[in-house]
Amino acid sequence: MANTTAAPQASSIAATDGGVTAPFGFQSAAVHCGIKAAQGALDLAVLAADRAISAAALFTTNLVKAAPVRVSQRHLAATDGRVRAIVVNSGCANACTGEAGMRDAATMASETAAGLGCLPEQILVASTGVIGVALKMDLLTPGIRAAARSLARGKGDEAARAIMTTDPFPKERAVVVSTGVGQFRVGGMAKGSGMIEPMMATMLGFLTTDAAVAPALLHRALREVAHDTFNAITVDGEPSTNDTLFAMASGASGVTIDEAAYPALLDGMRAVSRELSLEIVRGGEGATKVIAVTITGAPSEADARRVARTIANSLLVKTAVHGADPNWGRILAAAGRSGAIFNPDRATVKLGGVLLFENGLPHDEAAPEAEKHLQGQQIAIEMDLGFTPGHTATIWTCDLSAEYVRINGEYRT
Amino acid sequence: MANTTAAPQASSIAATDGGVTAPFGFQSAAVHCGIKAAQGALDLAVLAADRAISAAALFTTNLVKAAPVRVSQRHLAATDGRVRAIVVNSGCANACTGEAGMRDAATMASETAAGLGCLPEQILVASTGVIGVALKMDLLTPGIRAAARSLARGKGDEAARAIMTTDPFPKERAVVVSTGVGQFRVGGMAKGSGMIEPMMATMLGFLTTDAAVAPALLHRALREVAHDTFNAITVDGEPSTNDTLFAMASGASGVTIDEAAYPALLDGMRAVSRELSLEIVRGGEGATKVIAVTITGAPSEADARRVARTIANSLLVKTAVHGADPNWGRILAAAGRSGAIFNPDRATVKLGGVLLFENGLPHDEAAPEAEKHLQGQQIAIEMDLGFTPGHTATIWTCDLSAEYVRINGEYRT
Repeated sequence: MANTTAAPQASSIAATDGGVTAPFGFQSAAVHCGIKAAQGALDLAVLAADRAISAAALFTTNLVKAAPVRVSQRHLAATDGRVRAIVVNSGCANACTGEAGMRDAATMASETAAGLGCLPEQILVASTGVIGVALKMDLLTPGIRAAARSLARGKGDEAARAIMTTDPFPKERAVVVSTGVGQFRVGGMAKGSGMIEPMMATMLGFLTTDAAVAPALLHRALREVAHDTFNAITVDGEPSTNDTLFAMASGASGVTIDEAAYPALLDGMRAVSRELSLEIVRGGEGATKVIAVTITGAPSEADARRVARTIANSLLVKTAVHGADPNWGRILAAAGRSGAIFNPDRATVKLGGVLLFENGLPHDEAAPEAEKHLQGQQIAIEMDLGFTPGHTATIWTCDLSAEYVRINGEYRT
Repeated sequence: MANTTAAPQASSIAATDGGVTAPFGFQSAAVHCGIKAAQGALDLAVLAADRAISAAALFTTNLVKAAPVRVSQRHLAATDGRVRAIVVNSGCANACTGEAGMRDAATMASETAAGLGCLPEQILVASTGVIGVALKMDLLTPGIRAAARSLARGKGDEAARAIMTTDPFPKERAVVVSTGVGQFRVGGMAKGSGMIEPMMATMLGFLTTDAAVAPALLHRALREVAHDTFNAITVDGEPSTNDTLFAMASGASGVTIDEAAYPALLDGMRAVSRELSLEIVRGGEGATKVIAVTITGAPSEADARRVARTIANSLLVKTAVHGADPNWGRILAAAGRSGAIFNPDRATVKLGGVLLFENGLPHDEAAPEAEKHLQGQQIAIEMDLGFTPGHTATIWTCDLSAEYVRINGEYRT
């Protein structure tokens, strides 16, 4: 950051087409290797910069880390955050696969590096799919070579499809950020849709920008943005072995992010991340509704998040929303077991803005109106814990349907 | 305890018929008040001792405590643990009902006391059912009077049915404990079956014994026994606003529990509690299988419980078991996010005794045998964390089925 005293620049954001290759300086390719059984289903993507550029990543906090997570952590450290490309496959998580899995992840990097003409350490690796199954390297290696030969701009949508597992639709977004010193772009793609929980939230997320950002600053921005986007969603309270959020900054726009431009970078990254993470929730396994749980009046932000997460992960709340049942008692009970300390008699609960609980008592007359809200697809749960001034947090989740059970009872067998 | 140096006495346990009224000195009655809509469905029970006797209780740790919980806490304190009866209704939890709810719970106690001819403080109160709905006192009051008039021995089974909500079957058990100084009996009944989670586990549990036990010792025994029975089960990770485990000791057997006889009391209470808590799991909402999650080789007992609970509450594990999918990766991933620290490469995972993961690698050849185990109804998940000597814990849970979603999406509306 050249100038630490500069005032934030005014900036504006506009949505634009495309995803990870909307920013300049990036190309992608997606191919069918055969890891997914379905004929022609894309299951491998390479997202490459034109040269080694700034990169940062946030990795799962699960103690059990998949081989690609561990390889990516090493490569980021070894290159001080200067990488050329990310290679990612779906259909197999390469997790709990021992030393052979580590070798396979390293081979994914070295094969990609060979195709691009760079060092293996300049490649980051991601995998998503079933745990405990070895990668079919005889299928993957020719796939990587084919992908490296077919890189192009404007194929981000294929990459977004290639990273899907049980996702019902691909997720990509891009914005143009206009600042006083020029325009830059932020693009992204992500996949869900089970094992989603705030701690390192999504299975896989990829952000690109053509702003010039030093690796340390990119990492700081990624952490800040993830806090209230990818780390503020939950489908089933299950942070996975492979969760990773990547960011790459090509600098191809000519706009350099200094202290004054940093808020504009955050705005752009947040806009893309917010939409992608909400899309992950919307595409959650078996989901029919998106639920925003907003806690206000909490004694601390950590308490606000704790209460919001407990409500968002409550099976009884999620099934009640699924059945359009304005069962505010389950919301209050979930808050009560969250670990946060508050006085239930001073708390309020609203569904879709309809006040259902106040001063220790229900507003039964409002239940029909709240039920109407629950029949929609965008559900707002609001709870105030009664502290003034209080802290606030929002966690996004989806309802729990019989379809979730079907998907997860039949996923592997 | 008269003699703190006495050796434990040899004792033996045998199952016997009945439930809470199997021990001498207890009577019960159950009636239909009309709180449950179904014609003639029992929804009120009174469990009474012949005189004021020792009592103890464990209450929910949820910050949001229902009125009957708060009234029972006060009454136990006011009487130093000497009570005459417990009055309990199903169909309405009397939770989140404000001051009116507190008055209603107090009225349940005073009406019962009037019927029995004792002080209101000598009555404990419990309610289970929907949250946030006021008790219909115009139905309940005549019901309590009718129940107080019809107390008898040998009707424990009706009481066990009167406390059910979504429970698929009533749960009662009794044993005879034979010691060197005579026989005493322990009986019990319990109800589930949603909002079940270890912290104060079951919705409602009632234990009776005709041993003579001082209130403080009865409380100690209740805590000790609950730790690996009622507090070691989970259906959906949701400790409720009403969870309570009661114990009453009539002394009618003539056997006094001193230090030497204390292990025999624990054995008897544990035998009844173990079976009742497993019945709660077996009758969990939508449950088709009972799952025992046993962790060995943990760095501490708390870590063993933490890992076991995280696995037992994992939606992905519970749905995999439901679908008979030997997906040990989900077990390992749940353990990895539990907060306990261990080396995954030194951990082992077994399903039904079949080793599926060891030395960081799967035993794929064993999957068909593990799948056969999962097609049964008694599922054993075992995980060793690799510490020697290690600590152990077992948590019981059930699978997650589409039926759970149906029950909880349609429960209220």
